[in-house]
Amino acid sequence: MILPMKLRWTPARVGDALHEIDTPALVLDLDRFEANLERLMRSSTVRGMRVRPHAKSHKCVEIARRQIAAGAVGICCQKVSEAEVFLAGGIEDILVSNEVIGKRKVTALASLAVRYPKARIGVCVDDAKQVRQLATACRALSAEVDVYIELDVGHGRAGVPDTAAVVDLAREVKLHRNLKLRGLQAYYGSAQHRRTVRERRQAITLAAGLAGAARDGLLAEGLTCDVVTGGGTGTFPYETGSGVYNEVQPGSYVLMDVDYGKNEFDPIAPAFEPALYILCSVMSARGDRVTLDAGLKAFSTDSGPAMPAFEGWQVRGVSDEHTILIRVGNEGPNLVLGDKPLLIPGHIDPTINLHDVIVVSRNDVVVDVWPIEARGAVF
Amino acid sequence: MILPMKLRWTPARVGDALHEIDTPALVLDLDRFEANLERLMRSSTVRGMRVRPHAKSHKCVEIARRQIAAGAVGICCQKVSEAEVFLAGGIEDILVSNEVIGKRKVTALASLAVRYPKARIGVCVDDAKQVRQLATACRALSAEVDVYIELDVGHGRAGVPDTAAVVDLAREVKLHRNLKLRGLQAYYGSAQHRRTVRERRQAITLAAGLAGAARDGLLAEGLTCDVVTGGGTGTFPYETGSGVYNEVQPGSYVLMDVDYGKNEFDPIAPAFEPALYILCSVMSARGDRVTLDAGLKAFSTDSGPAMPAFEGWQVRGVSDEHTILIRVGNEGPNLVLGDKPLLIPGHIDPTINLHDVIVVSRNDVVVDVWPIEARGAVF
Repeated sequence: MILPMKLRWTPARVGDALHEIDTPALVLDLDRFEANLERLMRSSTVRGMRVRPHAKSHKCVEIARRQIAAGAVGICCQKVSEAEVFLAGGIEDILVSNEVIGKRKVTALASLAVRYPKARIGVCVDDAKQVRQLATACRALSAEVDVYIELDVGHGRAGVPDTAAVVDLAREVKLHRNLKLRGLQAYYGSAQHRRTVRERRQAITLAAGLAGAARDGLLAEGLTCDVVTGGGTGTFPYETGSGVYNEVQPGSYVLMDVDYGKNEFDPIAPAFEPALYILCSVMSARGDRVTLDAGLKAFSTDSGPAMPAFEGWQVRGVSDEHTILIRVGNEGPNLVLGDKPLLIPGHIDPTINLHDVIVVSRNDVVVDVWPIEARGAVF
Repeated sequence: MILPMKLRWTPARVGDALHEIDTPALVLDLDRFEANLERLMRSSTVRGMRVRPHAKSHKCVEIARRQIAAGAVGICCQKVSEAEVFLAGGIEDILVSNEVIGKRKVTALASLAVRYPKARIGVCVDDAKQVRQLATACRALSAEVDVYIELDVGHGRAGVPDTAAVVDLAREVKLHRNLKLRGLQAYYGSAQHRRTVRERRQAITLAAGLAGAARDGLLAEGLTCDVVTGGGTGTFPYETGSGVYNEVQPGSYVLMDVDYGKNEFDPIAPAFEPALYILCSVMSARGDRVTLDAGLKAFSTDSGPAMPAFEGWQVRGVSDEHTILIRVGNEGPNLVLGDKPLLIPGHIDPTINLHDVIVVSRNDVVVDVWPIEARGAVF
């Protein structure tokens, strides 16, 4: 189903200086990226845990490879089409941390298991209908996939409500030979950006209580629960500390964004730094107002706009292809027509998804260009 | 610089029923689309005007072709890379309704003029530095492009401030043999979504006053001003009625969105209807809450989220790949797991830009799949 993506426009070549890169372009600071990667894996807050970074944040095979080389057990994807991209890129342990419904999607998932027999592929369920559709597709293709029961630990977005429902659904999974029950998906999405440490810790204490009860319920019934997985960049230290989870799924940590930067820092956690920027050009300038050539098609604004990576300027407005900055105070650079300032994305995941490539720089020189292979993989 | 795009995942085939289309997918209602197309071209509100639809809204060559077949003189693009896509698709009259700065971009634009000698290519300027860069690139390649002086008619985003500055910059343009002065870009972006007819009309009365003075200033100095262009879906009837503009640039009219639907309707204007939807699947359901498999990567939320195209349900939250709907009242469908409801995009331009294809349907049967060739063309 997947065909090779061809790059249409290359904003940079290896050896280019930062100011030679065409704009707007995603630019990765490789030193910072590597530091974030190391900080996570060396941190006591993942000690003893399986680390399964979420690839929905970056959608880039090269980043997934580096995460695995650094010690990750595999990756999460959010979509079957995303999983297909990463399997094609050689990643062999993928959890689709999401429910899948409909004949086309379950068939696509089952066929991935057939086409990549060495790979371990998992998926979440929260309803017997999903289980039966999946089992039918897997049986038809002689495929086998791992199944995780998703438990709603607070977000109210997906997942069964309680231990009894977990056990019921696990019994349904066990009816099907081609489905292998692995454990629980217990991810608390909306807890990731609660601003105070106290709020995030409390949310995960509650989530871990529910997940622990569900795990105990499964084990008491002789049902498998090898993995309890969840946790994002905002909360993973608390999942690790809970004694219930044995796998965490941080995604944004390796690139970061303005929104995560607003979370109160917990000194027990690694101090991740922004590693991805949007390089823009000043395409119009008039006194204390400059207009950049990057707008809603170069970064998402769902968690606020991209922000200047420098002092003295503020975002006044964003439209399809423009961001207007105005001067505030005397700090920071004097921007003039043709300058190429850097913005920090407000929210990394939907921003990455707008671009075809990441320009990789070290000491302000381009050292590589990585395709974002899973860009647009919404299916 | 452009390479052929290959489709990576095809959500539908001709002949599929609506419920067979993979999700999330953009689905165009061809009857409504054709009605919008006709409504504009037949309307008295564009009588005597050159109509140059803005292709940044749809980024789709097939839609541009149909707009031209219906009587449009050409299209607008917002980016050089977008222009490249449409030129490659056979569109031969393109105005880049935006400023271009930097050697790579001006060279790319000039090289398009060389590669497509039959095409008419225009671009906007608001600074002598842009003019000189452009002239240098055109001279080096023996290329010729049309130049429009952008006048700031109220948005404060780009454009020179007044008639004197227009005349000064036009004189600079006239110094360069490879640049052909065509007239004025006088687009009032932020007026498009002022909610009342009165506000929009007032804004364009003001804009037309400024544009008319600038045009008269040019003509008085013996400088060319053949075209005064501007106007979007929210205001074009007023540009037409101004006696100053002779070209309008509506883009969203042919697809529409929730945001334009909130504008007070002016009975003199054509009544455009939503023609593009996001088809989703209910991937999780729990009582009066259903979760759809479309989120921030399937539609933009800068002007509010996509909204149900049906009664009785409201958006509670949107995350990367999910939208949560909750029941409000007893109207509308009973949504269950696996159902495929339609959403109307909040803002069409950045939503289109997230997808690789538009699934085209008539009477709920797929009749075509159109690639969105300029998706991601931000350069």
